[in-house]
Amino acid sequence: GFVGRGRGLPIGEKIGVIEMTGIIVASKTTIEHIIEFRNNPSIKGIVLRVDSPGGGVGPSQEIYEEIKKTVAVKPVVVSMGSVAASGGYYVSAPVNRIFANPGTITGSIGVIMEFTNVQELLGKIGLKNQVIKSGEHKDIGSPVRPMTDSDRQILQSLIDDTQQQFVAAVAEGRKMTVADVEPLADGRVFTGRQALAVGLVDELGNLQDAISAAARMAGIEGEPRVVYPPEEKPGVFQYLIQES
Amino acid sequence: GFVGRGRGLPIGEKIGVIEMTGIIVASKTTIEHIIEFRNNPSIKGIVLRVDSPGGGVGPSQEIYEEIKKTVAVKPVVVSMGSVAASGGYYVSAPVNRIFANPGTITGSIGVIMEFTNVQELLGKIGLKNQVIKSGEHKDIGSPVRPMTDSDRQILQSLIDDTQQQFVAAVAEGRKMTVADVEPLADGRVFTGRQALAVGLVDELGNLQDAISAAARMAGIEGEPRVVYPPEEKPGVFQYLIQES
Amino acid sequence: GFVGRGRGLPIGEKIGVIEMTGIIVASKTTIEHIIEFRNNPSIKGIVLRVDSPGGGVGPSQEIYEEIKKTVAVKPVVVSMGSVAASGGYYVSAPVNRIFANPGTITGSIGVIMEFTNVQELLGKIGLKNQVIKSGEHKDIGSPVRPMTDSDRQILQSLIDDTQQQFVAAVAEGRKMTVADVEPLADGRVFTGRQALAVGLVDELGNLQDAISAAARMAGIEGEPRVVYPPEEKPGVFQYLIQES
Amino acid sequence: GFVGRGRGLPIGEKIGVIEMTGIIVASKTTIEHIIEFRNNPSIKGIVLRVDSPGGGVGPSQEIYEEIKKTVAVKPVVVSMGSVAASGGYYVSAPVNRIFANPGTITGSIGVIMEFTNVQELLGKIGLKNQVIKSGEHKDIGSPVRPMTDSDRQILQSLIDDTQQQFVAAVAEGRKMTVADVEPLADGRVFTGRQALAVGLVDELGNLQDAISAAARMAGIEGEPRVVYPPEEKPGVFQYLIQES
Amino acid sequence: GFVGRGRGLPIGEKIGVIEMTGIIVASKTTIEHIIEFRNNPSIKGIVLRVDSPGGGVGPSQEIYEEIKKTVAVKPVVVSMGSVAASGGYYVSAPVNRIFANPGTITGSIGVIMEFTNVQELLGKIGLKNQVIKSGEHKDIGSPVRPMTDSDRQILQSLIDDTQQQFVAAVAEGRKMTVADVEPLADGRVFTGRQALAVGLVDELGNLQDAISAAARMAGIEGEPRVVYPPEEKPGVFQYLIQES
Amino acid sequence: GFVGRGRGLPIGEKIGVIEMTGIIVASKTTIEHIIEFRNNPSIKGIVLRVDSPGGGVGPSQEIYEEIKKTVAVKPVVVSMGSVAASGGYYVSAPVNRIFANPGTITGSIGVIMEFTNVQELLGKIGLKNQVIKSGEHKDIGSPVRPMTDSDRQILQSLIDDTQQQFVAAVAEGRKMTVADVEPLADGRVFTGRQALAVGLVDELGNLQDAISAAARMAGIEGEPRVVYPPEEKPGVFQYLIQES
Amino acid sequence: GFVGRGRGLPIGEKIGVIEMTGIIVASKTTIEHIIEFRNNPSIKGIVLRVDSPGGGVGPSQEIYEEIKKTVAVKPVVVSMGSVAASGGYYVSAPVNRIFANPGTITGSIGVIMEFTNVQELLGKIGLKNQVIKSGEHKDIGSPVRPMTDSDRQILQSLIDDTQQQFVAAVAEGRKMTVADVEPLADGRVFTGRQALAVGLVDELGNLQDAISAAARMAGIEGEPRVVYPPEEKPGVFQYLIQES
Amino acid sequence: GFVGRGRGLPIGEKIGVIEMTGIIVASKTTIEHIIEFRNNPSIKGIVLRVDSPGGGVGPSQEIYEEIKKTVAVKPVVVSMGSVAASGGYYVSAPVNRIFANPGTITGSIGVIMEFTNVQELLGKIGLKNQVIKSGEHKDIGSPVRPMTDSDRQILQSLIDDTQQQFVAAVAEGRKMTVADVEPLADGRVFTGRQALAVGLVDELGNLQDAISAAARMAGIEGEPRVVYPPEEKPGVFQYLIQES
Repeated sequence: GFVGRGRGLPIGEKIGVIEMTGIIVASKTTIEHIIEFRNNPSIKGIVLRVDSPGGGVGPSQEIYEEIKKTVAVKPVVVSMGSVAASGGYYVSAPVNRIFANPGTITGSIGVIMEFTNVQELLGKIGLKNQVIKSGEHKDIGSPVRPMTDSDRQILQSLIDDTQQQFVAAVAEGRKMTVADVEPLADGRVFTGRQALAVGLVDELGNLQDAISAAARMAGIEGEPRVVYPPEEKPGVFQYLIQES
Repeated sequence: GFVGRGRGLPIGEKIGVIEMTGIIVASKTTIEHIIEFRNNPSIKGIVLRVDSPGGGVGPSQEIYEEIKKTVAVKPVVVSMGSVAASGGYYVSAPVNRIFANPGTITGSIGVIMEFTNVQELLGKIGLKNQVIKSGEHKDIGSPVRPMTDSDRQILQSLIDDTQQQFVAAVAEGRKMTVADVEPLADGRVFTGRQALAVGLVDELGNLQDAISAAARMAGIEGEPRVVYPPEEKPGVFQYLIQES
Repeated sequence: GFVGRGRGLPIGEKIGVIEMTGIIVASKTTIEHIIEFRNNPSIKGIVLRVDSPGGGVGPSQEIYEEIKKTVAVKPVVVSMGSVAASGGYYVSAPVNRIFANPGTITGSIGVIMEFTNVQELLGKIGLKNQVIKSGEHKDIGSPVRPMTDSDRQILQSLIDDTQQQFVAAVAEGRKMTVADVEPLADGRVFTGRQALAVGLVDELGNLQDAISAAARMAGIEGEPRVVYPPEEKPGVFQYLIQES
Repeated sequence: GFVGRGRGLPIGEKIGVIEMTGIIVASKTTIEHIIEFRNNPSIKGIVLRVDSPGGGVGPSQEIYEEIKKTVAVKPVVVSMGSVAASGGYYVSAPVNRIFANPGTITGSIGVIMEFTNVQELLGKIGLKNQVIKSGEHKDIGSPVRPMTDSDRQILQSLIDDTQQQFVAAVAEGRKMTVADVEPLADGRVFTGRQALAVGLVDELGNLQDAISAAARMAGIEGEPRVVYPPEEKPGVFQYLIQES
Repeated sequence: GFVGRGRGLPIGEKIGVIEMTGIIVASKTTIEHIIEFRNNPSIKGIVLRVDSPGGGVGPSQEIYEEIKKTVAVKPVVVSMGSVAASGGYYVSAPVNRIFANPGTITGSIGVIMEFTNVQELLGKIGLKNQVIKSGEHKDIGSPVRPMTDSDRQILQSLIDDTQQQFVAAVAEGRKMTVADVEPLADGRVFTGRQALAVGLVDELGNLQDAISAAARMAGIEGEPRVVYPPEEKPGVFQYLIQES
Repeated sequence: GFVGRGRGLPIGEKIGVIEMTGIIVASKTTIEHIIEFRNNPSIKGIVLRVDSPGGGVGPSQEIYEEIKKTVAVKPVVVSMGSVAASGGYYVSAPVNRIFANPGTITGSIGVIMEFTNVQELLGKIGLKNQVIKSGEHKDIGSPVRPMTDSDRQILQSLIDDTQQQFVAAVAEGRKMTVADVEPLADGRVFTGRQALAVGLVDELGNLQDAISAAARMAGIEGEPRVVYPPEEKPGVFQYLIQES
Repeated sequence: GFVGRGRGLPIGEKIGVIEMTGIIVASKTTIEHIIEFRNNPSIKGIVLRVDSPGGGVGPSQEIYEEIKKTVAVKPVVVSMGSVAASGGYYVSAPVNRIFANPGTITGSIGVIMEFTNVQELLGKIGLKNQVIKSGEHKDIGSPVRPMTDSDRQILQSLIDDTQQQFVAAVAEGRKMTVADVEPLADGRVFTGRQALAVGLVDELGNLQDAISAAARMAGIEGEPRVVYPPEEKPGVFQYLIQES
Repeated sequence: GFVGRGRGLPIGEKIGVIEMTGIIVASKTTIEHIIEFRNNPSIKGIVLRVDSPGGGVGPSQEIYEEIKKTVAVKPVVVSMGSVAASGGYYVSAPVNRIFANPGTITGSIGVIMEFTNVQELLGKIGLKNQVIKSGEHKDIGSPVRPMTDSDRQILQSLIDDTQQQFVAAVAEGRKMTVADVEPLADGRVFTGRQALAVGLVDELGNLQDAISAAARMAGIEGEPRVVYPPEEKPGVFQYLIQES
């Protein structure tokens, strides 16, 4: 069969491919595609193609949750592209089998916040910032005053709490103990081949290998039909026949 | 059912989803959607999806008021995305149940005004500002003169009065005492999981979990139909048939 | 009824809503809408929605005058949004009832002119300005020469005269004495709740509350139909059938 | 009647409104509109709406001349908006009656030329300017050489001659003596109310008040129909049926 | 009759108006319009409306020549707008009668060339220019070497020769001697009223006055019909039916 | 036959040409074209035209894998253009025969990562960066702190592992030993002629020569028909008939 | 007849006008027009309208050659506009008669090359340039190394050879000796009137005078019909009916 | 016949003209045109119009090869425009006869690589570059480290090898010995006339002369029909009827 976007006949047993490319800033579209493929009985298995350095915690967790619900229904396989790190690994954790290229960059398990303090610069160019606020931490992370110990404690606690969530999610998805995951979760990066060695990845291979594996796991005989989610751009008619 | 924008048949029991994304600068569209869903008898419950770091006090209060009136009519559930802080929390306070991701950033309860004084910079580049005014405070917050004690008193009183309104709104919405809210209202931020622990959030879960909860509260059996407000862009015909 | 732009049937008793958003730079469109709604017998009351930090003196006064004439014909209610200050308050003064959010920023009653002198900067970069003029004050407020005492006296007298007009307009509209208004008119800002306490505002509430109040004052029973002025963009046909 | 651009029936007695907004750079369109309204027998009076800080001497004088010819045929009233100063006052001088808002900025009677000398700047950045010219004053006002006494005499004489023309025009239009006008013509600015006191303005009121006055002066009973000049943008057909 | 672009019926006696606005960079369009109006027997007189500070010598001379040929056939009148100086005066010189506003800026009879030497600047920023040339003066006026005495002599001779042509053209057109023109031709500027006094202008008045005068000179009784050249933009058809 | 994009009749024996131009950032399109040509029985041989300085490791490996699978099915020949270096050589390694121009730049076998540290610059302009993180290496490669020995060890191990993969791939594709490849794999560049001498290239010639060779290897007699993949831009119809 | 682009009937005796405006960067279009007019039997003479400061040597020579061939077939006249210097004079040299305005700038006979050395600038900003080259002069004229004596000799020889070609072309075209031309060919500029005096121009007059002269030389009686080359933009049809 | 792009009847004996303008960055289009003209039996000869300062080695060699194959089939003539140097000469070398304008710039036989080192600049602005690499030369030519002797040796060897290829190609094409070519191949430039003297060019003349020569060599009697390759932009239909 031809590997393309939704071309072909609407019959036969299919593998659905969902692409996650670039920084993860929203979960909505990806989750809609997951639900659509999960509920579609002619789709026997799902391949999540991940090519992302990570992104926001919220959308990564929301996709993670939806993947977890899906694994209970039909096989899900991840195919990692150039990079699948941080949030790109978070969403991959719960699937049945992870494929990576030997040279894929993965890992970077961890959470980080960055703040730039511009106070000295403002002083140099003759600007002074005045703040009227209702509480001590309302301008936490402000670029125009030093970070206090109390500020830092609040932010580190927020980061640590999120990191515990991340490690627990990897441990659960990969069927490892938290103690197994923690040494791998100090933010370091791995090649796909190194990740295979430490158990973060299951097999080396490209997208086509992942599709074949998903087909096998779904019990499809012969070459599977591959479908992608429909394009977002709605037709002209959609505008005219919306209900409210 | 498919989760999409108003596709599907106009029958059955529905959950209406309203999205508040980005900085809150206006209340009009959101309030129109709330009233529309409140008055629509086929919509049994409402989910407010909040992904916002806050915004203006005025629009946050106007949406808060309209949500409060709605809770008296049908169940309203909030689903927090990446961030639902400050004004993003203000609008969430009165609903029946708040869902957050474990890693959602929330809190930041408080009010703030920022002023930049450019006087020294103007002096350096050889500009001098002259003001003719009718009263002492007409140029309050001016970037070209120092803030006087009297100016600061007026502005701090304005901030404090607004903060009292904010704390009272949270206390009323969350059925807490003002004394309970105040220690949480110094501007600090929480993860969703931390917010659950201190009572600012009711449950962890993603948008789909919030929709399911709203359906349960509305007494819908089975999977609910999900609808979104119609797109704003009016059709060509609308221009031709306006009354005046 | 649905709250929207001119949708619905051309029958029944209506409240007309006119929006004033942003800086007030012109009066023409707003005045045309006021006259249109005043002359339309099916519109029983008018709500002026103000979300403006002020603007030019001239257009504010022209709208003020037209509102004053309208109050004699049918009830007019103001709904203040995020901010209704300076000229945004000027136009509100004569109406029957002013609604504000508790956190609305209002006040800033006063007049101001700002001039930037660039003479020192020009000297630094090696520019010299030469003026040939017909009279001493032709270049009053010039950025390239110091302001003389005589210049300043002319400008301050212009500001003071305008401020007297502003204070008198507020006193007349709010049925206060000039002596009552003056302490509130040194340019200071108020929250909506503070403004209620000092008598610059009549009630707290959002736009929907203002519409309900206008309907009550207009003697409309049940929920009023709400209409907005038609959009400005004329249809294609308008171009073809202009008279001259 | 509705106050709009040329809508309505082509019958009845009308007041024509011509708008002059922004800096006066050309006279052609305004003069064409004046002639059109002057020659149209169904237009009984004209209102010139001025919202301009002035502009070029030439176009101001050309419009002034055409207004003067028009006053002999039918009543012309000026309505000043935010500002009607310098050239904006020049064109207003000859009409039958001038209306201003109390806060309108007017006056600034006078003429001015500004030159910037960049010689020192060029020296700093290493540029040198060489001029080959046919006569001493060919580069009068040049930014790259000092202004000579002889240059300055020529330019001041040009300004003084023009100022005499301006003062004489105001005196003639306002039926004052040159001696009355001169103390008001040193370039100073007035509020509308101050201008009323010194005789540069006849009455306070907005555009609607000016239209009513013009109607009264034209002997129109009841509310006048108001028309604006047709829009400039020609229809498609115009291109096809030009004669040559 | 209406004063507009080519509207109206193709009958009756007409005055053709040609506009020269802005810097004179080309002569082609203006000359085509002059020839078209000269050859059109229904056009009895021509008004050249000049609003230009001058421009290139070549196009000014070419238009001057074509005007001179036209004056022999039918009356030509100039109407000066804001400014008609240098080349803007050159083209006006040969007509039957020149009208100016009293405040028009005119004169500036003369020729000028400007060169900027950037050698010192290049040295400061570390650039050095190398030239390979075939003759001493091939880089005359070069911004990267000093101007030699020999260069300057060549350029001054070029300017002086052109100035003699200019003065002779004015003398011939205004029927003055070269000795009369020379004191007015040192580059100085005049108001229209001053120019009238020294004989460079014949009458004060605006465009309408010039049109009336041209009509009178052409022997037209009553109000003349006024036509403008057709717009340049050719219709779609023109592209399809070009011969070659 | 004509050499063009997919023009011509769908009969006869064909050579399919796939172009890889510019930096290799994705593998999807190229792999789809390879599979399409591999599965198309009328295409007897494939020419991969490479004009690329390399790119990402992941996509290069994915294309390499797919080429390797294809060589087992039908002959594949590479034609190198201006440059086929690094990743551009990686994808070429497994084919049956490599053609290069004598002046092609090839080689550059190796892997590299570059980091820019901006700490000193930030200090100079008065910016200070603060990081809150969950683990030691979460900000590995950070531009705002020095690289630690531990960081460097992790990154060098990642590079070394990837380089082993590269060398092994070349050795396998070119049927050389790893020991043969290593001296050529220190990143150095070769002309096509030099690469021929060391065994990285098989023959000198341009694209036409490569096509002829592929045809010969595929057993095509006479001039082969040449086809390119269809353009990506789908027709209008595709949008309307997508399945989901 | 009307002077326009190709309008009119395809009969009668015509003068073809070809415009050369701006810098001469290519010869193709101009040569195609020359050949078209030369081969068209209904065109009896050609006017070349030159308004150019010169340009490339190659295209100037190519046009010069084609003009020379044309002069043998029918009369060619040049009309110089604002400027016809250097290459603009080169192409004019061979025609039957040259017209100029008295104020046209012409001459500048010569050849020049300019190089900017940026070495010192690069050093200042910390850049260093490294060159790997195959021969001593491969980077002749390089901005990053000093020009050697040997470089300069090669370039001066190239300029001198080209200048000899230029002088010879002028001598041949104007029927002067090389010795006559050389003193005029040191790069100096002339007014049209000065050029007439030294023999580089034949007559003073504008484009219309040149057209009349060409008509006379072509033996046309009465006013000639004037045609321009057709516009380049091909019609839609041209795209569809190309042969190959 | 008319000289244009593919206009005219598809009969008769033709000369095909192929244009190479600007920097040579790709060979594909030019080679397709060469093959098309070579295979087209109605095209009897080819003129390659070169106006290029050179470009990449690869595409120059690929075009050179294809020209060489073509010379064996039908006559090929080069016409040099403003410049035909370096790669522009490389592609010209194998043709039957080279025409140049006397002032064409040609030669520049040689190869060059340029690298800019920015290390000192980075230090000044506070940036430091860190590289992790797999081999010594992987960052050869790096702008952030000095070039080592070993680097330089590799690059010079690459340049020297390419230069040998260039010299050999010229010798073969021009039927000279390598020893004849080498003194002309140190990168120096020639005028067309100088190049004729040293044997790099065969005749002086413009494009029309080259076309005539090609026609003579092809045995065409009378004026040849001239055709250009069809434009690249495919019609709308092409998109719809692609095979795959």
